[in-house]
Amino acid sequence: MGNILVGQSGGPTAVINASLAGVIHAGFASGRKVYGAVNGVEGILAGNLISLDQFKDHRMLQLLKQTPASYLGSCRKKLPDASEAPQMYETIFSVFQKYDITDFLYIGGNDSMDTVDKLSRFAKETGRKVRIAGVPKTIDNDLAGTDHTPGYGSAAKFVANAVRQISLDARVYDINAVTIVEIMGRNAGWLAGAASLAGVDGIPGADILCLPEKPFSVDWFLKTLEEKNREQKSLVVAISEGIADEKGNYLCEYTAKKSNADDQFAHTMLGGAGQALEHFIKKELGYKTRTVELNTLQRCFAQGASLTDVQEAFQAGVQAVCFLERGESGFMVCFDRKEGEGYEITYTPKPVEKIANLEKKIPASMLSADEKGVTREFIDYALPLIQGEPQLIYENGMVAFCKR
Amino acid sequence: MGNILVGQSGGPTAVINASLAGVIHAGFASGRKVYGAVNGVEGILAGNLISLDQFKDHRMLQLLKQTPASYLGSCRKKLPDASEAPQMYETIFSVFQKYDITDFLYIGGNDSMDTVDKLSRFAKETGRKVRIAGVPKTIDNDLAGTDHTPGYGSAAKFVANAVRQISLDARVYDINAVTIVEIMGRNAGWLAGAASLAGVDGIPGADILCLPEKPFSVDWFLKTLEEKNREQKSLVVAISEGIADEKGNYLCEYTAKKSNADDQFAHTMLGGAGQALEHFIKKELGYKTRTVELNTLQRCFAQGASLTDVQEAFQAGVQAVCFLERGESGFMVCFDRKEGEGYEITYTPKPVEKIANLEKKIPASMLSADEKGVTREFIDYALPLIQGEPQLIYENGMVAFCKR
Repeated sequence: MGNILVGQSGGPTAVINASLAGVIHAGFASGRKVYGAVNGVEGILAGNLISLDQFKDHRMLQLLKQTPASYLGSCRKKLPDASEAPQMYETIFSVFQKYDITDFLYIGGNDSMDTVDKLSRFAKETGRKVRIAGVPKTIDNDLAGTDHTPGYGSAAKFVANAVRQISLDARVYDINAVTIVEIMGRNAGWLAGAASLAGVDGIPGADILCLPEKPFSVDWFLKTLEEKNREQKSLVVAISEGIADEKGNYLCEYTAKKSNADDQFAHTMLGGAGQALEHFIKKELGYKTRTVELNTLQRCFAQGASLTDVQEAFQAGVQAVCFLERGESGFMVCFDRKEGEGYEITYTPKPVEKIANLEKKIPASMLSADEKGVTREFIDYALPLIQGEPQLIYENGMVAFCKR
Repeated sequence: MGNILVGQSGGPTAVINASLAGVIHAGFASGRKVYGAVNGVEGILAGNLISLDQFKDHRMLQLLKQTPASYLGSCRKKLPDASEAPQMYETIFSVFQKYDITDFLYIGGNDSMDTVDKLSRFAKETGRKVRIAGVPKTIDNDLAGTDHTPGYGSAAKFVANAVRQISLDARVYDINAVTIVEIMGRNAGWLAGAASLAGVDGIPGADILCLPEKPFSVDWFLKTLEEKNREQKSLVVAISEGIADEKGNYLCEYTAKKSNADDQFAHTMLGGAGQALEHFIKKELGYKTRTVELNTLQRCFAQGASLTDVQEAFQAGVQAVCFLERGESGFMVCFDRKEGEGYEITYTPKPVEKIANLEKKIPASMLSADEKGVTREFIDYALPLIQGEPQLIYENGMVAFCKR
């Protein structure tokens, strides 16, 4: 066996570096050299590889595990087909050869799995002795073939805690008010669905939850809000940024469409779904309304991370190396959840060609038609993923991290 | 001595309930009964007092300490002068008499200290045997007479960690991009200033920091951004929501003023200072830009709290009861910082009449004219306040809290 190369791609998560740490840990455990590709495949194409020897130090590896964002840098490059750009593939494999890379691991989401698929097929077709693996990563939890994705649990935990605490904050005054919490996730509502966890055990969380899986009706929404307001003055609404009406028009595009198009400030009106809803609430019901966009903190706030997620992300990296060393290639490490009581998962390599470019949405059985948004099945699915808190190392009162 | 009454007022902080816990703890320690006023003075006027006996249970008191938002509920009521509304004062003191209240503590910011001042003067002038104390609380850190305010340290810690982590997140791609982080604080830049802590020790934090104490110039800002962009593609800008130009026009009002006033979506354009800046950057420099408003999480996210702040907030409540029991009245508990190496504070009661209705801004010696925004003196001032992390109790993967 030659050396290992690992890269990161797509938007970061709170645990994408835990997977990196897992790959490094398993690589060193086999006595192998581990390189990192700076900014994903872009770094490979540019020959920008770095040695990861510094992580032979235990404390450095611990720090890496808790470092937010992608330590190696990222890219959003989707590889063209090998038939369209053979030179690009030759460049990549010549870099592999130069560094004696026999195993390449790519930590990423849908587009990254497409890259894994294309590179492993090219290797097979051209007889190159390089094995290629995908390690899943996305806060969106929308990858097929796996019970859930590393990164989702921490983002879900942040959302659940944020919605609960914003909800407590919103209810301190005895006045009519609406707080809209806007959560990431354009097409799949997994992350926004985590807002439901805030209200588990009868604790007040979000009073209305709107997911992209269900067509959004402004009339239904305002009517429900008005009804809820009769019982409780201050209301909290959790929405996915991707909610859209029956015709598929995104709420976040409502304001732009209905406003004066040549206004020089038109772009500021694009706003989000929350701002659009804010407009309707103020206009039709007159309640004091504000929007809180959870924004990038959802994916990068280490203090909000789930220990379960951190450990699984690390293990996904370790298992990927193990599967490669057994001779597997062209797979993504998938999580299978055991049936029955208690939470337990196993790791399986599944062919990446059956995973790439698919988008997993919330199944109908987890969706509820009312203002709750999700059923108990969703809560039973998501709650185990946000359990536990990592012990973080701090410096100067701030979460310590590794610099590249 | 009769019974103790405690109330909370104004916007919540992550530690306002730690001060409440301190008051309760000290009250029970003296063998006294402690009541809570629901929704501050509004609750007193309505006779809405509750017993706080449940906090004789140690675990409940621990939970209260970490509960975000105001446990007793809050209000924004500013009392009229006694001469204008004598009946209101009579109502309040009759409620005190009914519950045998001899000591009233009000946890809050500027407006609440005004209430403490008015009630204690009324008590003195009319010979009522009720002592009245203020316990400071505000994330804005803008109260006079005290080195800093409980609530600021935790909010500052959240801001410092958020800016550091958003900054790491923003730099993963190798592209021209600007991330604007908008921080609370309308007139005083204490909280936005905490963004500087993210960059301590030469770690990349915010590349430009703009505070309300310094008149904001769009030209200077764009020029500085362009210069910085030559060294580094992805830039992070931290701004206070209250930045204003030389004429005192708030940036957040720019968009509304310059847009078509009768546009039905005008209100969505109000946006914040960040959205206004976003407009200028996109228009003049064409960089990809996004704004992250830290919003209410700054004041309510328990996982971001500072242990130093939690402990001081608790102690402020304890000390307030002690000072009352020594016969003091009409004071606010103030923090005095010892000169010299190391961080140490002492608690002193200071006349609230000299504190109420003043607003403490960042002194000139802590402000820097360049893009750093603050001097080392500011960092030395703020850094000790964000040290340490409380051990939180979790339930179901979420921060546990007390319900009223």
